[in-house]
Amino acid sequence: MRTTDIINQYCPVARSIAVVGNAWSLLLLRELFLGSRRYEDLAMHTGMSSRLLAQRLRTLEDEGVVERQRYQERPPRDEYRLTAKGRDLWPLIVALRTWGERWHEWPEGRPVRLRHRGCGRLAEPRHVCSHCSEPVHAQDMEFEMSAYAVDEREARRPRRIRVRDG
Amino acid sequence: MRTTDIINQYCPVARSIAVVGNAWSLLLLRELFLGSRRYEDLAMHTGMSSRLLAQRLRTLEDEGVVERQRYQERPPRDEYRLTAKGRDLWPLIVALRTWGERWHEWPEGRPVRLRHRGCGRLAEPRHVCSHCSEPVHAQDMEFEMSAYAVDEREARRPRRIRVRDG
Repeated sequence: MRTTDIINQYCPVARSIAVVGNAWSLLLLRELFLGSRRYEDLAMHTGMSSRLLAQRLRTLEDEGVVERQRYQERPPRDEYRLTAKGRDLWPLIVALRTWGERWHEWPEGRPVRLRHRGCGRLAEPRHVCSHCSEPVHAQDMEFEMSAYAVDEREARRPRRIRVRDG
Repeated sequence: MRTTDIINQYCPVARSIAVVGNAWSLLLLRELFLGSRRYEDLAMHTGMSSRLLAQRLRTLEDEGVVERQRYQERPPRDEYRLTAKGRDLWPLIVALRTWGERWHEWPEGRPVRLRHRGCGRLAEPRHVCSHCSEPVHAQDMEFEMSAYAVDEREARRPRRIRVRDG
Protein backbone atom coordinates (compact mmCIF):
# COMPACT_ATOMS: atom_id res chain seq x y z
CA MET A 1 0.00 0.00 0.00
CA ARG A 2 1.20 3.46 -0.80
CA THR A 3 0.44 6.47 1.39
CA THR A 4 -2.17 7.61 -1.13
CA ASP A 5 -4.13 4.40 -0.52
CA ILE A 6 -4.76 5.42 3.07
CA ILE A 7 -7.60 7.62 1.85
CA ASN A 8 -9.56 4.55 0.77
CA GLN A 9 -10.03 3.34 4.34
CA TYR A 10 -13.50 4.14 5.66
CA CYS A 11 -11.97 5.93 8.61
CA PRO A 12 -11.97 9.64 9.43
CA VAL A 13 -8.47 9.46 10.93
CA ALA A 14 -7.12 7.93 7.73
CA ARG A 15 -8.85 10.53 5.55
CA SER A 16 -7.39 13.37 7.60
CA ILE A 17 -3.95 11.78 7.48
CA ALA A 18 -4.21 11.61 3.69
CA VAL A 19 -4.76 15.39 3.60
CA VAL A 20 -2.58 16.82 6.39
CA GLY A 21 -0.65 13.87 7.82
CA ASN A 22 2.80 14.86 6.66
CA ALA A 23 5.53 16.94 8.23
CA TRP A 24 5.49 19.80 5.73
CA SER A 25 1.76 20.37 5.69
CA LEU A 26 1.66 20.29 9.49
CA LEU A 27 4.52 22.78 9.73
CA LEU A 28 2.75 24.98 7.19
CA LEU A 29 -0.43 24.83 9.26
CA ARG A 30 1.49 25.83 12.39
CA GLU A 31 2.85 28.81 10.52
CA LEU A 32 -0.56 29.86 9.21
CA PHE A 33 -1.99 29.63 12.74
CA LEU A 34 0.89 31.81 13.95
CA GLY A 35 -0.27 34.43 11.45
CA SER A 36 2.18 34.08 8.56
CA ARG A 37 0.40 34.77 5.29
CA ARG A 38 3.01 35.62 2.73
CA TYR A 39 4.86 33.18 0.60
CA GLU A 40 8.30 34.35 1.71
CA ASP A 41 7.38 34.13 5.40
CA LEU A 42 5.97 30.65 4.95
CA ALA A 43 9.13 29.60 3.13
CA MET A 44 11.39 31.15 5.77
CA HIS A 45 9.70 29.64 8.83
CA THR A 46 9.14 26.18 7.42
CA GLY A 47 12.46 25.94 5.60
CA MET A 48 10.66 24.49 2.57
CA SER A 49 12.03 24.88 -0.91
CA SER A 50 9.99 27.13 -3.16
CA ARG A 51 8.91 24.21 -5.30
CA LEU A 52 7.78 22.10 -2.35
CA LEU A 53 6.00 25.02 -0.72
CA ALA A 54 4.10 25.87 -3.91
CA GLN A 55 3.08 22.24 -4.28
CA ARG A 56 1.84 21.89 -0.69
CA LEU A 57 -0.02 25.19 -0.78
CA ARG A 58 -1.71 24.08 -3.98
CA THR A 59 -2.76 20.79 -2.37
CA LEU A 60 -4.12 22.56 0.71
CA GLU A 61 -5.96 24.99 -1.57
CA ASP A 62 -7.44 22.11 -3.57
CA GLU A 63 -8.59 20.53 -0.32
CA GLY A 64 -10.25 23.78 0.76
CA VAL A 65 -7.95 24.22 3.77
CA VAL A 66 -6.21 27.34 2.49
CA GLU A 67 -7.42 30.16 0.26
CA ARG A 68 -5.40 32.61 -1.74
CA GLN A 69 -6.12 36.33 -1.75
CA ARG A 70 -4.48 38.88 -4.00
CA TYR A 71 -3.10 41.77 -1.98
CA GLN A 72 -1.11 43.52 -4.70
CA GLU A 73 -1.63 43.77 -8.45
CA ARG A 74 1.66 45.03 -9.86
CA PRO A 75 3.51 42.79 -9.58
CA PRO A 76 0.79 40.25 -8.64
CA ARG A 77 1.17 38.99 -5.08
CA ASP A 78 -1.07 36.60 -3.18
CA GLU A 79 -1.36 35.84 0.46
CA TYR A 80 -2.59 32.62 2.02
CA ARG A 81 -5.20 32.28 4.70
CA LEU A 82 -6.86 29.40 6.47
CA THR A 83 -10.46 28.81 5.46
CA ALA A 84 -13.11 27.73 8.00
CA LYS A 85 -12.13 24.14 7.21
CA GLY A 86 -8.49 25.05 7.82
CA ARG A 87 -9.17 26.86 11.10
CA ASP A 88 -11.01 23.75 12.22
CA LEU A 89 -7.60 22.04 12.32
CA TRP A 90 -6.66 24.11 15.35
CA PRO A 91 -7.14 21.19 17.82
CA LEU A 92 -4.62 19.22 15.77
CA ILE A 93 -1.93 21.89 16.08
CA VAL A 94 -2.76 22.42 19.75
CA ALA A 95 -2.42 18.67 20.34
CA LEU A 96 1.03 18.68 18.74
CA ARG A 97 2.03 21.69 20.80
CA THR A 98 0.79 20.33 24.13
CA TRP A 99 2.49 16.99 23.62
CA GLY A 100 5.73 18.61 22.46
CA GLU A 101 5.78 20.92 25.46
CA ARG A 102 5.13 18.12 27.90
CA TRP A 103 7.49 15.46 26.59
CA HIS A 104 10.53 17.35 25.45
CA GLU A 105 13.09 19.26 27.43
CA TRP A 106 12.98 23.05 27.06
CA PRO A 107 16.24 24.28 28.58
CA GLU A 108 15.53 27.86 27.48
CA GLY A 109 12.06 27.85 29.03
CA ARG A 110 8.65 27.04 27.61
CA PRO A 111 8.53 28.33 24.04
CA VAL A 112 4.81 29.08 23.68
CA ARG A 113 1.99 29.77 26.07
CA LEU A 114 -1.66 30.19 25.26
CA ARG A 115 -3.84 33.00 26.51
CA HIS A 116 -7.60 32.77 26.52
CA ARG A 117 -8.91 36.04 25.10
CA GLY A 118 -12.22 35.59 26.92
CA CYS A 119 -10.89 35.54 30.48
CA GLY A 120 -7.48 37.04 29.73
CA ARG A 121 -5.54 34.32 31.54
CA LEU A 122 -2.75 32.00 30.49
CA ALA A 123 -4.53 28.71 30.09
CA GLU A 124 -4.58 25.39 28.32
CA PRO A 125 -7.42 23.93 26.33
CA ARG A 126 -8.82 20.93 28.19
CA HIS A 127 -11.06 18.19 26.86
CA VAL A 128 -14.44 17.70 28.48
CA CYS A 129 -17.34 15.45 27.53
CA SER A 130 -19.89 17.29 25.37
CA HIS A 131 -22.67 15.57 27.26
CA CYS A 132 -21.76 15.74 30.96
CA SER A 133 -18.90 18.29 30.83
CA GLU A 134 -16.58 16.11 32.92
CA PRO A 135 -12.87 16.19 31.91
CA VAL A 136 -12.01 13.34 29.54
CA HIS A 137 -8.75 11.59 28.67
CA ALA A 138 -7.88 8.65 26.45
CA GLN A 139 -9.07 6.03 28.90
CA ASP A 140 -12.42 7.76 29.47
CA MET A 141 -13.78 7.44 25.95
CA GLU A 142 -14.22 4.42 23.78
CA PHE A 143 -14.54 4.21 20.02
CA GLU A 144 -17.66 2.61 18.61
CA MET A 145 -17.33 1.63 14.99
CA SER A 146 -20.29 1.41 12.65
CA ALA A 147 -21.12 -1.99 11.18
CA TYR A 148 -19.92 -0.74 7.81
CA ALA A 149 -16.54 0.34 9.23
CA VAL A 150 -16.16 -2.99 11.06
CA ASP A 151 -16.89 -4.89 7.83
CA GLU A 152 -14.36 -2.80 5.97
CA ARG A 153 -11.74 -3.65 8.60
CA GLU A 154 -12.64 -7.32 8.53
CA ALA A 155 -12.29 -7.39 4.75
CA ARG A 156 -8.59 -6.65 5.21
CA ARG A 157 -8.11 -9.99 6.92
CA PRO A 158 -6.52 -12.51 4.60
CA ARG A 159 -9.07 -15.08 3.44
CA ARG A 160 -8.36 -18.65 4.27
CA ILE A 161 -9.47 -20.88 1.47
CA ARG A 162 -11.34 -23.85 2.80
CA VAL A 163 -10.84 -27.05 0.93
CA ARG A 164 -13.85 -29.26 1.33
CA ASP A 165 -13.51 -32.94 1.63
CA GLY A 166 -14.96 -35.15 -1.03
CA MET B 1 16.10 21.97 5.01
CA ARG B 2 15.32 18.30 5.35
CA THR B 3 12.46 17.00 7.44
CA THR B 4 14.92 15.91 10.11
CA ASP B 5 15.97 19.54 10.58
CA ILE B 6 12.50 20.43 11.82
CA ILE B 7 13.47 19.10 15.22
CA ASN B 8 16.00 21.92 15.63
CA GLN B 9 13.31 24.58 15.77
CA TYR B 10 12.62 25.73 19.35
CA CYS B 11 8.96 24.94 18.88
CA PRO B 12 6.87 22.19 20.50
CA VAL B 13 4.79 21.72 17.35
CA ALA B 14 7.92 21.16 15.27
CA ARG B 15 9.36 18.69 17.80
CA SER B 16 6.16 16.67 17.81
CA ILE B 17 6.04 16.71 14.02
CA ALA B 18 9.58 15.35 13.94
CA VAL B 19 8.44 12.36 16.03
CA VAL B 20 4.90 11.56 14.83
CA GLY B 21 4.22 13.93 11.91
CA ASN B 22 4.12 11.36 9.15
CA ALA B 23 1.33 9.32 7.66
CA TRP B 24 2.56 5.90 8.74
CA SER B 25 3.25 6.75 12.37
CA LEU B 26 -0.13 8.44 12.66
CA LEU B 27 -1.90 5.45 11.13
CA LEU B 28 0.02 3.19 13.49
CA LEU B 29 -1.07 5.31 16.45
CA ARG B 30 -4.70 5.12 15.32
CA GLU B 31 -4.38 1.37 15.22
CA LEU B 32 -2.80 1.16 18.68
CA PHE B 33 -5.57 3.35 20.10
CA LEU B 34 -8.11 1.01 18.49
CA GLY B 35 -6.52 -1.81 20.49
CA SER B 36 -4.34 -3.62 17.95
CA ARG B 37 -1.21 -4.94 19.64
CA ARG B 38 0.19 -7.66 17.47
CA TYR B 39 2.55 -7.18 14.62
CA GLU B 40 0.35 -8.93 12.07
CA ASP B 41 -2.70 -6.86 13.04
CA LEU B 42 -0.73 -3.63 12.84
CA ALA B 43 0.56 -4.66 9.41
CA MET B 44 -2.90 -5.64 8.18
CA HIS B 45 -4.73 -2.51 9.28
CA THR B 46 -2.10 -0.01 8.23
CA GLY B 47 -1.11 -1.77 5.03
CA MET B 48 2.54 -1.19 5.84
CA SER B 49 5.23 -3.49 4.53
CA SER B 50 6.93 -5.57 7.19
CA ARG B 51 10.18 -3.65 6.77
CA LEU B 52 8.52 -0.24 7.11
CA LEU B 53 6.40 -1.35 10.06
CA ALA B 54 9.43 -2.72 11.93
CA GLN B 55 11.29 0.52 11.31
CA ARG B 56 8.47 2.76 12.50
CA LEU B 57 7.79 0.65 15.58
CA ARG B 58 11.48 0.82 16.44
CA THR B 59 11.45 4.61 16.10
CA LEU B 60 8.35 4.93 18.27
CA GLU B 61 9.96 2.60 20.81
CA ASP B 62 13.15 4.69 20.82
CA GLU B 63 11.03 7.78 21.40
CA GLY B 64 9.27 6.15 24.33
CA VAL B 65 5.86 6.20 22.63
CA VAL B 66 5.51 2.44 22.29
CA GLU B 67 6.79 -0.41 24.44
CA ARG B 68 7.26 -4.01 23.50
CA GLN B 69 6.11 -6.85 25.71
CA ARG B 70 6.82 -10.51 25.15
CA TYR B 71 3.67 -12.58 25.27
CA GLN B 72 5.04 -15.89 24.01
CA GLU B 73 8.46 -17.48 24.36
CA ARG B 74 8.50 -20.30 21.82
CA PRO B 75 8.67 -18.95 19.22
CA PRO B 76 9.34 -15.49 20.69
CA ARG B 77 6.47 -13.09 20.02
CA ASP B 78 6.13 -9.50 21.17
CA GLU B 79 3.17 -7.22 21.35
CA TYR B 80 3.19 -3.44 21.22
CA ARG B 81 1.49 -1.10 23.62
CA LEU B 82 1.31 2.63 24.00
CA THR B 83 3.28 4.00 26.95
CA ALA B 84 1.97 6.91 29.04
CA LYS B 85 3.76 9.22 26.60
CA GLY B 86 2.03 7.42 23.73
CA ARG B 87 -1.43 7.53 25.32
CA ASP B 88 -0.91 11.26 25.75
CA LEU B 89 -1.18 11.51 21.95
CA TRP B 90 -4.88 10.72 22.15
CA PRO B 91 -5.95 14.36 21.53
CA LEU B 92 -3.98 14.24 18.28
CA ILE B 93 -5.84 11.18 17.00
CA VAL B 94 -9.15 12.59 18.21
CA ALA B 95 -8.41 15.84 16.36
CA LEU B 96 -7.77 13.92 13.14
CA ARG B 97 -10.95 11.92 13.64
CA THR B 98 -13.17 14.91 14.40
CA TRP B 99 -11.91 16.86 11.42
CA GLY B 100 -12.20 13.87 9.10
CA GLU B 101 -15.75 13.18 10.22
CA ARG B 102 -16.80 16.78 9.80
CA TRP B 103 -15.22 17.60 6.46
CA HIS B 104 -15.57 14.44 4.44
CA GLU B 105 -18.63 12.77 3.03
CA TRP B 106 -19.62 9.50 4.71
CA PRO B 107 -22.18 7.95 2.37
CA GLU B 108 -22.31 4.75 4.46
CA GLY B 109 -22.90 6.64 7.69
CA ARG B 110 -20.53 7.95 10.35
CA PRO B 111 -17.75 5.40 10.76
CA VAL B 112 -16.84 5.97 14.41
CA ARG B 113 -18.60 7.40 17.41
CA LEU B 114 -17.17 8.03 20.84
CA ARG B 115 -18.80 6.99 24.07
CA HIS B 116 -17.87 8.54 27.39
CA ARG B 117 -17.44 5.69 29.85
CA GLY B 118 -18.17 8.03 32.75
CA CYS B 119 -21.68 9.08 31.76
CA GLY B 120 -22.32 6.29 29.28
CA ARG B 121 -23.45 8.62 26.48
CA LEU B 122 -22.31 9.09 22.92
CA ALA B 123 -20.38 12.33 23.11
CA GLU B 124 -17.57 14.37 21.63
CA PRO B 125 -14.59 15.76 23.49
CA ARG B 126 -14.86 19.54 23.59
CA HIS B 127 -12.17 22.07 24.38
CA VAL B 128 -12.67 24.37 27.33
CA CYS B 129 -10.35 26.91 28.95
CA SER B 130 -8.46 25.37 31.89
CA HIS B 131 -8.93 28.60 33.81
CA CYS B 132 -12.55 29.69 33.28
CA SER B 133 -14.00 26.48 31.76
CA GLU B 134 -15.64 28.35 28.88
CA PRO B 135 -15.61 26.55 25.50
CA VAL B 136 -12.63 27.59 23.37
CA HIS B 137 -11.97 27.52 19.64
CA ALA B 138 -9.09 28.72 17.47
CA GLN B 139 -10.11 32.37 17.60
CA ASP B 140 -10.47 32.36 21.40
CA MET B 141 -6.86 31.63 22.27
CA GLU B 142 -3.70 33.38 21.25
CA PHE B 143 -0.16 32.09 21.22
CA GLU B 144 2.42 33.94 23.30
CA MET B 145 5.97 33.10 22.34
CA SER B 146 8.84 33.36 24.77
CA ALA B 147 11.59 35.89 24.01
CA TYR B 148 13.89 33.00 23.22
CA ALA B 149 11.45 31.50 20.73
CA VAL B 150 10.90 34.90 19.09
CA ASP B 151 14.66 35.39 18.74
CA GLU B 152 15.02 31.97 17.22
CA ARG B 153 12.35 32.82 14.65
CA GLU B 154 13.93 36.17 13.90
CA ALA B 155 17.29 34.53 13.33
CA ARG B 156 15.77 32.77 10.32
CA ARG B 157 15.30 36.10 8.57
CA PRO B 158 17.94 36.62 5.90
CA ARG B 159 20.48 39.23 7.01
CA ARG B 160 20.82 42.26 4.85
CA ILE B 161 24.41 43.31 4.68
CA ARG B 162 24.72 47.02 5.10
CA VAL B 163 27.51 48.59 3.12
CA ARG B 164 28.68 51.74 4.83
CA ASP B 165 29.64 54.75 2.85
CA GLY B 166 33.24 55.87 3.01
